[in-house]
Amino acid sequence: MKIDKYKIEEYNQQESSKHTRKLEGLVEEIANYEEILQKLIDFQIAIPSWALGSGGTRFGRFPGGGEPRSLEEKIEDVGLLHTLNQSSGAISLHIPWDVPENYQSIKALAAQHGLAFDAMNSNTFQDQANQALSYKFGSMQHVDKAVRKQAIAHNIEVIKHGVALGSKALTVWLSDGSCFPGQLNFRKAFQRTLESLQEVYAALPSDWKMFVEYKAFEPNFYSTTVGDWGQSFLYATKLGPQAYTLVDLGHHLPNANIEQIVSLLLMEGKLGGFHFNDSKYGDDDLTAGSIKPYQLFLIFSELVEGMDARQMDHASDLGWMIDASHNVKDPLEDLLQSVEAIMIAYAQALLVDRKSLIVAQEENDVAKAQEILQTAFRTDVRPLVAEARLRANGALNPLALYRSLKVREELVKERGSKTVATGL
Amino acid sequence: MKIDKYKIEEYNQQESSKHTRKLEGLVEEIANYEEILQKLIDFQIAIPSWALGSGGTRFGRFPGGGEPRSLEEKIEDVGLLHTLNQSSGAISLHIPWDVPENYQSIKALAAQHGLAFDAMNSNTFQDQANQALSYKFGSMQHVDKAVRKQAIAHNIEVIKHGVALGSKALTVWLSDGSCFPGQLNFRKAFQRTLESLQEVYAALPSDWKMFVEYKAFEPNFYSTTVGDWGQSFLYATKLGPQAYTLVDLGHHLPNANIEQIVSLLLMEGKLGGFHFNDSKYGDDDLTAGSIKPYQLFLIFSELVEGMDARQMDHASDLGWMIDASHNVKDPLEDLLQSVEAIMIAYAQALLVDRKSLIVAQEENDVAKAQEILQTAFRTDVRPLVAEARLRANGALNPLALYRSLKVREELVKERGSKTVATGL
Amino acid sequence: MKIDKYKIEEYNQQESSKHTRKLEGLVEEIANYEEILQKLIDFQIAIPSWALGSGGTRFGRFPGGGEPRSLEEKIEDVGLLHTLNQSSGAISLHIPWDVPENYQSIKALAAQHGLAFDAMNSNTFQDQANQALSYKFGSMQHVDKAVRKQAIAHNIEVIKHGVALGSKALTVWLSDGSCFPGQLNFRKAFQRTLESLQEVYAALPSDWKMFVEYKAFEPNFYSTTVGDWGQSFLYATKLGPQAYTLVDLGHHLPNANIEQIVSLLLMEGKLGGFHFNDSKYGDDDLTAGSIKPYQLFLIFSELVEGMDARQMDHASDLGWMIDASHNVKDPLEDLLQSVEAIMIAYAQALLVDRKSLIVAQEENDVAKAQEILQTAFRTDVRPLVAEARLRANGALNPLALYRSLKVREELVKERGSKTVATGL
Amino acid sequence: MKIDKYKIEEYNQQESSKHTRKLEGLVEEIANYEEILQKLIDFQIAIPSWALGSGGTRFGRFPGGGEPRSLEEKIEDVGLLHTLNQSSGAISLHIPWDVPENYQSIKALAAQHGLAFDAMNSNTFQDQANQALSYKFGSMQHVDKAVRKQAIAHNIEVIKHGVALGSKALTVWLSDGSCFPGQLNFRKAFQRTLESLQEVYAALPSDWKMFVEYKAFEPNFYSTTVGDWGQSFLYATKLGPQAYTLVDLGHHLPNANIEQIVSLLLMEGKLGGFHFNDSKYGDDDLTAGSIKPYQLFLIFSELVEGMDARQMDHASDLGWMIDASHNVKDPLEDLLQSVEAIMIAYAQALLVDRKSLIVAQEENDVAKAQEILQTAFRTDVRPLVAEARLRANGALNPLALYRSLKVREELVKERGSKTVATGL
Repeated sequence: MKIDKYKIEEYNQQESSKHTRKLEGLVEEIANYEEILQKLIDFQIAIPSWALGSGGTRFGRFPGGGEPRSLEEKIEDVGLLHTLNQSSGAISLHIPWDVPENYQSIKALAAQHGLAFDAMNSNTFQDQANQALSYKFGSMQHVDKAVRKQAIAHNIEVIKHGVALGSKALTVWLSDGSCFPGQLNFRKAFQRTLESLQEVYAALPSDWKMFVEYKAFEPNFYSTTVGDWGQSFLYATKLGPQAYTLVDLGHHLPNANIEQIVSLLLMEGKLGGFHFNDSKYGDDDLTAGSIKPYQLFLIFSELVEGMDARQMDHASDLGWMIDASHNVKDPLEDLLQSVEAIMIAYAQALLVDRKSLIVAQEENDVAKAQEILQTAFRTDVRPLVAEARLRANGALNPLALYRSLKVREELVKERGSKTVATGL
Repeated sequence: MKIDKYKIEEYNQQESSKHTRKLEGLVEEIANYEEILQKLIDFQIAIPSWALGSGGTRFGRFPGGGEPRSLEEKIEDVGLLHTLNQSSGAISLHIPWDVPENYQSIKALAAQHGLAFDAMNSNTFQDQANQALSYKFGSMQHVDKAVRKQAIAHNIEVIKHGVALGSKALTVWLSDGSCFPGQLNFRKAFQRTLESLQEVYAALPSDWKMFVEYKAFEPNFYSTTVGDWGQSFLYATKLGPQAYTLVDLGHHLPNANIEQIVSLLLMEGKLGGFHFNDSKYGDDDLTAGSIKPYQLFLIFSELVEGMDARQMDHASDLGWMIDASHNVKDPLEDLLQSVEAIMIAYAQALLVDRKSLIVAQEENDVAKAQEILQTAFRTDVRPLVAEARLRANGALNPLALYRSLKVREELVKERGSKTVATGL
Repeated sequence: MKIDKYKIEEYNQQESSKHTRKLEGLVEEIANYEEILQKLIDFQIAIPSWALGSGGTRFGRFPGGGEPRSLEEKIEDVGLLHTLNQSSGAISLHIPWDVPENYQSIKALAAQHGLAFDAMNSNTFQDQANQALSYKFGSMQHVDKAVRKQAIAHNIEVIKHGVALGSKALTVWLSDGSCFPGQLNFRKAFQRTLESLQEVYAALPSDWKMFVEYKAFEPNFYSTTVGDWGQSFLYATKLGPQAYTLVDLGHHLPNANIEQIVSLLLMEGKLGGFHFNDSKYGDDDLTAGSIKPYQLFLIFSELVEGMDARQMDHASDLGWMIDASHNVKDPLEDLLQSVEAIMIAYAQALLVDRKSLIVAQEENDVAKAQEILQTAFRTDVRPLVAEARLRANGALNPLALYRSLKVREELVKERGSKTVATGL
Repeated sequence: MKIDKYKIEEYNQQESSKHTRKLEGLVEEIANYEEILQKLIDFQIAIPSWALGSGGTRFGRFPGGGEPRSLEEKIEDVGLLHTLNQSSGAISLHIPWDVPENYQSIKALAAQHGLAFDAMNSNTFQDQANQALSYKFGSMQHVDKAVRKQAIAHNIEVIKHGVALGSKALTVWLSDGSCFPGQLNFRKAFQRTLESLQEVYAALPSDWKMFVEYKAFEPNFYSTTVGDWGQSFLYATKLGPQAYTLVDLGHHLPNANIEQIVSLLLMEGKLGGFHFNDSKYGDDDLTAGSIKPYQLFLIFSELVEGMDARQMDHASDLGWMIDASHNVKDPLEDLLQSVEAIMIAYAQALLVDRKSLIVAQEENDVAKAQEILQTAFRTDVRPLVAEARLRANGALNPLALYRSLKVREELVKERGSKTVATGL
């Protein structure tokens, strides 16, 4: 399925006067309005290929219909999102779920949809049907060198796929860890993991980045071998300048101050990118901004401040990806909501009066500093985000248009109601 | 110090055109605009007398200046707040910190400032200088009946003060609990506490309510004898129809779903009232809405829905109080910020499209339900709240006016820079 | 596979002198030694049928070999455990995974292994292949009455299976809840769930109990409709005298004081039973006592105290079950470890000097109270637990014998290495 | 007050036969019995001067009697502990609470009691009476250089006191952080703090260590500038080889795996020392081992393994200190309990069968690895710890003797019942 451009134009025309009215009030209050708008237009969030189907838990999975049955259909799905919001211009592939059979045709298809290939993701947390050795007791940390070699080889193969597609980064999330005290020697597990990562790092093209993702717990419930930002930072530092820490918002212990972690990683030049989602309890993988929108804003506030301090390019110098699981919602709707929430948080962060904030901080004027952040957050930036979309030829309200165009119904018709996409 | 009415008018005049412009966009989108406005005008949040001075932690306290030295000055301070925001029309007293010497003059003073006396608070978590028996091992739970009697007598005395002042509720927060396994027999502690509360309950005037506050931990670090909503509910149910549960937002275990608790307590007719504040880790007693504004909104959304379902009066059928500690900000500024955040959350909750929400819920349209709540939350309702204040003769922006009038400087001049208010 | 009695006797003989030596020191210090021993002999912990195979997470599952392929083989597996430890004399079935085809033969088989049928478990958290309506949006809470009816009918069917087998209880664990704010009306969800439970309750034979299990989160990540003990208690109270709360150790928010909950539920006569396991982060379903053995002891200490206060029979008046997931260990080994840890905690709890503890509590002698509990906990009660097993014709060290008899190897030989048991 | 040696001998004689009997069973099972005993004898845990009086919370403080009124009396108190247990041979001072007036007499007094001076502690979390500038908004992170200079000067002064007394380490715990989003620029706060610490580091004698303590929250409730081990590690690495991370068991987010942190810090050569205590919720400062004794054992298990791997001396190569608050118990009794729990955990860790554990780990024999740790933990090592004490001329049961000698009553007689020691 493809959404015709004119349908978007038609829709935008309908909504135009309402939009303009809402936007007006906003524009006059924002000094650097055009600059902010351009940043919003430039900002692209990669969609993970595994999030295009229904997700599930160990207790069950309730698939909807019309899920993509192939890499081609996954690209098509991201294309639909990008057509609507013009902010999802990249897809993040997962191997072995998305092994391309023909690079050229896949690249061409993606190009057709205006999509780039974001970070590649390897998988050593599951055993595949044809796999020689099991990852039951870890992959890169495994006591058996043969298992480690298998995991290393898999990652190098993922890099190769990525090179062929034009990706520039490898995300390594390791579920390696232990379920019981005594199971692992923490130090040796760290060292084995480091050595394995070093072999993968050695295979990295010089213009690639390696993202070392950390996670506090799950699927291992006693220890995780890349368990927190401090550990990821240790690995990334020992690996070298192309290795970075990747922050997934759901991978922390309760009450963690993620925005501070972000700020310090930026300070050290070791923040690589993000997996956006939201959570109340653990790695709940909920829609971005659906539980703690203020935290999402605060994280973006640190990102804007910290990237500007290092003169980094917001759009391209970090990896922006969603990593969520859609257990009860249409995956495409959920992703539209996530992207919207991320854009809103980014827009609010761009509105923060940085100069006044610095003054307030210098004067220990805590109430004022709080007011400055809250002023930005309380501003209704939806018209701003919509305007950015409009200028980029997206829809003023992607979700509304998605529904009125009956996209899901169309996909079910095309693909059937019993399809199940690869993924968790 | 008193703020002259004309200064507020003058200020509002200055800000008038800007305010009107912002309000306009909002008004046309809200069907029941006047109704909502009236609810906002009617809504009053009681200020706790102990929050008018600087708070502290066990590690230290850093007082500002101009703190109120007497009950009279505390009333004066709340009067200042109420003059500015017209939403703080009540004070919640704490005995023995606020024992009135002359009821008539205190009542007259409060009336002069337009203030009512909200719930009275007893204190059995500290030993007072002249106290016969110690609360080191609890008060109402104490193994020694004499200590329990002392605690009961104190609470009855607090009721008497309250009756004399026109209060209609007693808030009982018990720090009773234990620091180590084995210290307490949980069952007996519960039963002794229940018996003690029953004696206090028996002394309650028939038009009074008793609020049984719960708290997960601190100052006891192993168990608390009224430790969660379930326990408070048990006490309140056994006590009788005048007993209710009081929810303090900072008194939960990590990740608790407070809005669900609120909804269920309302369902059972046992929600009594609120202590507003915000927190990231425990009973941090931060400014309301400063950490988790979306949670505050969700709580208000349940309040509005649940109170309407029982045809309760928003303004008067529950007790609304702030309970915060101002460790690094001017207490009065902090309270203005808290009240503003509460009003914003309430206004957003009033904007929720209830009819559409019910439909979405009936259809399991999760994405839509989320959109409906987010639409209300993302709306910039500050002009609405300001308009309510304007109509009630408060200031369009209380904090801005407070600062431009140099209220704190004036108070320091009047009271000195070394004053320390009673409280934590 | 069956373990010959004489192999156990042989093994015990070998270990006899070592055991006797260790036991001697202990015996002389315990006044009511024989009484405690009898209690340990009588205490039986039900094994859940779904825990006999490898468990997994949403990220993967790594099955071992020789997993039971049928209900008969599951009973055989529990029989093996019981032969070894004489403390696992019951099996807890799960429908539809364990629908018996022929009640008489299944009952006869169980009797042959000395096993009773413990609480029956229903399943409305997954969709079965042949199921008319989906539980995607809940079962007993569902907005659609037809779905609720289906869930009710299923539970009633489970009761029927249980009646035929001689079970006396139904455990209802509902995953019902919501993933996003707005998805549910908490109050209505509660009320619909209550009505559904009432219909099931009405179908309960008069000598049956209904256990209402609560859980803080997972698989729903925003709210759970039976989310904490307070909610379960509300349901159980409204349902009637045959309804009780069931406590699963992994179903709480971080830092919850579970032993206090246990004590209060016993006080109210509403504690029904237990699901034993251990956890560090959430419902990790780890081996009982593997992470927080002191907590397990404290819980048993409250159980012993509270049951004795109500003159309840330790062995029969509450339901004792394991509910764990064996992701990296041989399930049978894991279960032997869990049972051992539970018996140890129970034995330690029986050793607590209750009279001295009461005196210490009455005197607020906190240090003494702590010493009394720690004295019991620090005692090495393994010889005591082993002696109880010896007298009941179990093995002195079940795990050691299990290994030396190469039980798993035998099972793999019999059943194959690729079998996968039903379960999570 | 002083405890006569002969009273200890007398007591030990009385208990001798019972002790010997209990010890016998243990001795024969431990291969390297004498070696372990010597390690237990050598192991000394420093007592913090501020823990000799009753602690409190922001809600109140309930002092007992006989608290030390001077540095001399604090040394006397630690001397009493050390006389009884021979494991508390050091005192950790806190400036300005313990400024020595005469170094020689203080050193002589300590020597008389067999005490060394452990790490010195600075205080920049409170304002002292005579202090020029306030730490309300931080000390080493402060935006005002003058405040930072004051904090640096204070720390250098603390070093000087320490040098004069023979201490060899400075513990820097900074409460610096923020209470509200926006208050701090995290990056700048980090950099200012680093610069301040660098100035202190520069003043460190070449044979001194600097311990950089981290803490997740409290007294700041939004961010802490040395907030986790990763941050402390960053500071320590940037500071240089004499800087180390100090782990306080109560300073983590919920569910943190502290033993893994310990292992990794040892791996990096950056673990400096410990503050022992226990907690259920936050920095509860409860008696060591009173809540999570298995965690304490697991930490010691990592310490033994990790220190042996680096051939470190258990007794002298890390700093071992208690940091607890005694709110409801006699501080001296509480400290005796803490030391006992620490010695028990250490003894159990020494009993772990390391060779078998390595084999189990190499074979991914998770059940076996768990058994090995549990076997050590379930062993009743109290006779072993008592024997170590006996050989060192301490009391077989320090707490029992403390009580029978009526030490507290004696101290109250000497010092009065209203004394309040400096501290929190």
